[in-house]
Amino acid sequence: MKTQLEFAKQGDVTPHLKVVAQTEGITSASLLRHVARGEAVIMCRNDTAVGIGRGLRTKVNVNIGTSPFRIDPEEEMKKAILAEKYGADTITDLSMGGDISSIRKRIFEMTTVPVTTVPIYQTAAENGIDTMTAEDIIATITQQAEEGISSVVLHCVTKRIVDTLKSEVRVMGVVSKGGAITIRYMLRNQVENPFIKHFSEILRILKEYDIVLSLGNSMRSGCIHDIMDTAQREELMLNAQLAKQAHEQDVQVIVEGVGGHVRADRIASYVRQYKSHSHAPLFVAGPLPIDIAVGHDHIAGCVGASIASGAGADYLCYITPAEHIGLPSPEQVKEGLIAFKIAAHIGDTMKYNLVKPDKDLSVKRSLLDWRGQVEYAIDGEALLNSAPNDGPCTMCGDFCALKLMKEL
Amino acid sequence: MKTQLEFAKQGDVTPHLKVVAQTEGITSASLLRHVARGEAVIMCRNDTAVGIGRGLRTKVNVNIGTSPFRIDPEEEMKKAILAEKYGADTITDLSMGGDISSIRKRIFEMTTVPVTTVPIYQTAAENGIDTMTAEDIIATITQQAEEGISSVVLHCVTKRIVDTLKSEVRVMGVVSKGGAITIRYMLRNQVENPFIKHFSEILRILKEYDIVLSLGNSMRSGCIHDIMDTAQREELMLNAQLAKQAHEQDVQVIVEGVGGHVRADRIASYVRQYKSHSHAPLFVAGPLPIDIAVGHDHIAGCVGASIASGAGADYLCYITPAEHIGLPSPEQVKEGLIAFKIAAHIGDTMKYNLVKPDKDLSVKRSLLDWRGQVEYAIDGEALLNSAPNDGPCTMCGDFCALKLMKEL
Repeated sequence: MKTQLEFAKQGDVTPHLKVVAQTEGITSASLLRHVARGEAVIMCRNDTAVGIGRGLRTKVNVNIGTSPFRIDPEEEMKKAILAEKYGADTITDLSMGGDISSIRKRIFEMTTVPVTTVPIYQTAAENGIDTMTAEDIIATITQQAEEGISSVVLHCVTKRIVDTLKSEVRVMGVVSKGGAITIRYMLRNQVENPFIKHFSEILRILKEYDIVLSLGNSMRSGCIHDIMDTAQREELMLNAQLAKQAHEQDVQVIVEGVGGHVRADRIASYVRQYKSHSHAPLFVAGPLPIDIAVGHDHIAGCVGASIASGAGADYLCYITPAEHIGLPSPEQVKEGLIAFKIAAHIGDTMKYNLVKPDKDLSVKRSLLDWRGQVEYAIDGEALLNSAPNDGPCTMCGDFCALKLMKEL
Repeated sequence: MKTQLEFAKQGDVTPHLKVVAQTEGITSASLLRHVARGEAVIMCRNDTAVGIGRGLRTKVNVNIGTSPFRIDPEEEMKKAILAEKYGADTITDLSMGGDISSIRKRIFEMTTVPVTTVPIYQTAAENGIDTMTAEDIIATITQQAEEGISSVVLHCVTKRIVDTLKSEVRVMGVVSKGGAITIRYMLRNQVENPFIKHFSEILRILKEYDIVLSLGNSMRSGCIHDIMDTAQREELMLNAQLAKQAHEQDVQVIVEGVGGHVRADRIASYVRQYKSHSHAPLFVAGPLPIDIAVGHDHIAGCVGASIASGAGADYLCYITPAEHIGLPSPEQVKEGLIAFKIAAHIGDTMKYNLVKPDKDLSVKRSLLDWRGQVEYAIDGEALLNSAPNDGPCTMCGDFCALKLMKEL
């Protein structure tokens, strides 16, 4: 099977590319150019296709999955269903507890959007973090590819970057779970990064199934004190270089960066620094502009993600109110997703001047047409559940400014 | 009684000024200078004093109060108690339904923070919007001053500004309730703005009780299509000029502006434009950077308020999830307040490099010391309710990055 990237390089418009172009309201020719250059990727799953990158609306990923401390597949199914219902563009299954493959199978059954995995999670959970081998990791990638995932996250942190990290003055150290598992594997076994060591072989698998490679952000900062230090910059540069290699091998690729905790006044410049180094779409987790919003990190994350996407980030990984406390409930998944849909739209108003839904809704709002607003709202259901049937709402009653001015 | 401004102009450090300086961790001398110049105000209520303006942490106001369509004083009391419990710096009572003075009396009993009113609300509610007189308005201001309010909002929009507005191409027109009531009064009675007409008399009342004058933002934009147009700029310039007059008359004063709905990429420059024209502290409502987040406007508002306060806004008026739908419940008041406490802190990390609580919390977080984080969190209760007693949380279990790295 040829990848979307191979087709694009040849100038062939695929059905998936056409779907994305239509959804985004851009021409296939322009999207084809972006995909061919690696500025955009198309994640496919059956007939569904999601475009991420230059010229495309900011996308939102929702993480779900069991943890070793909380294994409740039914809850995860509820999360998968809510994620798709409230507009997640992609879902990442991070399951590390229970029968992982069977949980993922059920997630596939419940959803239609592209699914991403972090293969080292399942490898570590099933083979033991201190006993797993590089062969186990590659076997997991192959197995997950066969199951039908659309994207994988690999943490390509090198020994050198780990050495660099040791000389940094960080409060939080490494906060990436995939990064920490990978580093532990490397240090225990005294080996180089398994993904880099087997990069060609892994690219062959990803190419065969047209899986989008997502280069993980192991060195992301876990608090705003831990700035974009040398370790993090080295990783970002390495990822930009690996992205180039993947692109040359016809594997679609995105890069994670500027995620974690980043002060609000530095987010935009970090995004622009990245963009000046790499064509590959930028995937950001958060970022959180402060550390003290625990219990409400989806709100703080919305601020960071708004600034990041406005500055050019292409793809946002949501944060839920349970961040830093525990595994989220289905309701918290919904809350986190909506907060990040808000961030994506704020970003798109800045990136693309995408203000039409806002004007359309406001026209209806100015007429006190409550039902008419529903189709433009990020969460039309909230409006349906709480708005009056007609006339002014309970905030102002007959002193409604819109009503008072209309009567004049 | 002398006002805080008179004392400051004379170089006298008052007990209230001392309290604010201590709370803020700055010297009385520096605060005195800011107050004397009108760059900061001190809102007093009995022994409580809240400083707003230059060099002071960003403050958050919570609006409560009955509406003509929803009169439930017990609910409003719950809101007042929650507002103070979760850290509102000031409370504005916007009651327009029921026995307004008795509701406010109970709010005073339930709280200790400064209380603001919008006198034209009570005047219109009690005297009828089309039958009230300028004397009624002044009588209400006097009555509220005697009751012990700390600040009043007056909408000083002129006939000329209303004429300018008529030539603007707005979707939402006037969305300020106080503005709309005032304009209606002016147009029905064919008179100039009552607050401007009686400005000297009103200043005398405010001076007598040392009430902070808040110059309202009648022309604020009700959707992001309605930009900072000529009408809005004229009002802001007029307010800056009125603020100068009030300052000369020893009345402490703040200006409302850049509120309502403002695109994310314009907020900072609008704040800076205002700051280049006026010394008076800037009070912003929201702003909302998009229009389609209905049901979750506290989150979108947090983004706008974060950018505004980072750019120099001094005082934020919160927005609840009920914005644009109805009067908020007590729980929604809490949610809105926490979202804006987050915005205020994000702003302060930018304005003042105020990152100590973040580092202090992160040090505890890096040790998986859950209880130790509580005192630094914006909502420590959320942490107490959901965090584990010790060890890693249910998100990662034994694959916790912090735990894995520590074991190495």
